[in-house]
Amino acid sequence: MKCTSLSLLALAAAMTLPALAAHKGTVDLKQPLVLASQGSFFVGGESKTIPPATPNGAAGEVTVNQMYVQFQTPLNAGRHLPVVMVHGCCLSSKTWETTPDGRMGWNEYFVRRGRAVYLADQSSRARSGFDASIITAVKAGTAPPSQLPNVLFASHQVAWLVFRFGPKFNQPFPDGQFPVEAADELYKQMIPDLNSTLPSPNPTWANMAALAVKLHGAVLMGHSESGFFPEQAALHDPSGIKAMISIEMPCPALTDAQISSLAKIPTMVMFGDHLGDVQGGPANWANSFASCQKFVQRVTAAGGDAEMLHLPAMGIHGNSHMLMQDRNNLQLADLILDWINTHVEGRKATARK
Amino acid sequence: MKCTSLSLLALAAAMTLPALAAHKGTVDLKQPLVLASQGSFFVGGESKTIPPATPNGAAGEVTVNQMYVQFQTPLNAGRHLPVVMVHGCCLSSKTWETTPDGRMGWNEYFVRRGRAVYLADQSSRARSGFDASIITAVKAGTAPPSQLPNVLFASHQVAWLVFRFGPKFNQPFPDGQFPVEAADELYKQMIPDLNSTLPSPNPTWANMAALAVKLHGAVLMGHSESGFFPEQAALHDPSGIKAMISIEMPCPALTDAQISSLAKIPTMVMFGDHLGDVQGGPANWANSFASCQKFVQRVTAAGGDAEMLHLPAMGIHGNSHMLMQDRNNLQLADLILDWINTHVEGRKATARK
Repeated sequence: MKCTSLSLLALAAAMTLPALAAHKGTVDLKQPLVLASQGSFFVGGESKTIPPATPNGAAGEVTVNQMYVQFQTPLNAGRHLPVVMVHGCCLSSKTWETTPDGRMGWNEYFVRRGRAVYLADQSSRARSGFDASIITAVKAGTAPPSQLPNVLFASHQVAWLVFRFGPKFNQPFPDGQFPVEAADELYKQMIPDLNSTLPSPNPTWANMAALAVKLHGAVLMGHSESGFFPEQAALHDPSGIKAMISIEMPCPALTDAQISSLAKIPTMVMFGDHLGDVQGGPANWANSFASCQKFVQRVTAAGGDAEMLHLPAMGIHGNSHMLMQDRNNLQLADLILDWINTHVEGRKATARK
Repeated sequence: MKCTSLSLLALAAAMTLPALAAHKGTVDLKQPLVLASQGSFFVGGESKTIPPATPNGAAGEVTVNQMYVQFQTPLNAGRHLPVVMVHGCCLSSKTWETTPDGRMGWNEYFVRRGRAVYLADQSSRARSGFDASIITAVKAGTAPPSQLPNVLFASHQVAWLVFRFGPKFNQPFPDGQFPVEAADELYKQMIPDLNSTLPSPNPTWANMAALAVKLHGAVLMGHSESGFFPEQAALHDPSGIKAMISIEMPCPALTDAQISSLAKIPTMVMFGDHLGDVQGGPANWANSFASCQKFVQRVTAAGGDAEMLHLPAMGIHGNSHMLMQDRNNLQLADLILDWINTHVEGRKATARK
């Protein structure tokens, strides 16, 4: 953590959000991290029969669609709901850890602020594995190449535009918050996305819902590709889901019945800056923002507690799509923690302890 | 941690290794875990130009061959060398974490015993990503299916035999240490292995050597597919490598010059039980053991400090190939820690503090 950015954060928080500044003062990020527990496990997964590996071999089973989850629990977590964080396209749970320029990520910061954190690699990604049997079948000539998965992976050039680091590749926004000097480290986080190998509906949705049940209640957070996964999980099984936090994604069209169902759970949507300021690239963030404004309005009209946190409208400028890695990432984490405290756990923003 | 297994461990340790039992008494596994720091980063990685994603799109670069590393440092780590753990085929760093039946893994135990631990996902696996461009090319018809990678993934049936859970599938050894009641949880850890997409030599070797240099000295540990990677890393660049721990793998034939080079670094090889007791399966552990006995003999003859820890010969019976997940996994961790203390750091086994 650089002292300069901490000071700027503290200044910004003091000017716009006095309660956050006061609370931040209670967490010394240089103190040792004390954990009540940590570990990892899987949620979901089914057996699938695969053909023999050799002409003389036997058929067998592999496990697919499971979701790997890594967790840390602070000493005083009992007072707070756990938070489940799920990454976006072409990324893994690395998203939430140490930033590309070496600062503290949201995973550790949330723990230091008293919440258990569960990082899930989406089913078919990273440590969750994926169903590779079609690749083997095409290589063996028993399936046509057209059946190979559409593997998503973004080039550096596409990532720069989709993640809104600047209007053109290698040209940053003057007020951009992403640490572009460390963009090469971000590119190392970008890994092949094999979601196209998954059955429909995406098993990560049911796995997230099952994780919330297993935890006896949790806040689900998604980003980008997984931004609407908390809502999809709630449409599958809302019983364990205490809040939904959706960061920067398109919001799909829903039926009135679906809106009514989601309106029973507090919802927060967050978008960063420069939504219409990028030239080219496959994403249209202005359209995504508009679709989510409509979603928030419909949930609110249905009697729900839904809030759009559009950062520039709150006086917080320059945030990229990778806002959990931006220079002001801990200021944004405080916004989220404050929202959970007040909208989900019924605490007062100015009286948290 | 189950009290019964702890008691058995303590009993076993007291009977065979008094120093370890005494030391274990100084670590209360139920106390909170206190970390000086934690985080994640990448080692290595190169840019590679990929074709345009669409006919009208532009070519771009992706990053490949990088190695994802996750670390935790205890408060008192300064007295001890860090340990880098690298997983085997069709697995990820999950190998070293919470066991399939929910006990503490080596990652946390080593930290609680005062050592910084670095878990690396092999290049081309899990959070390290892999080069998927050939899959895209075959799907697009610009490369033949024969160029698809040989994806390695083991069925439950093959895993049971290769990991030596018993003589036949679903038939455990009577004295087996692996928690076979949780085998389904192990199968969820097994993910596609895309090492065949890597250039030669395997970039993980150079990445492990570079990590040891970055850490100003480290103990490298490998298992199974990566069992000889510490030695391969040392043949690439020994400058940061203070010790090599190789668990259950075939030992390749080396030249006298290579043996002479490796003999400068303390080396420990560990094998479990029932090496010749499995009927079928692609592994021949008795042959692997013999090849490593020869390796240890050659290093010793060259003046090196090399030791074979064949567990049954030490009175420790029933260990599987996944011995870091076996019921006596912490007893084996103590063996390793004791070896590092005495062979690498020059401490006396009975006077460690």
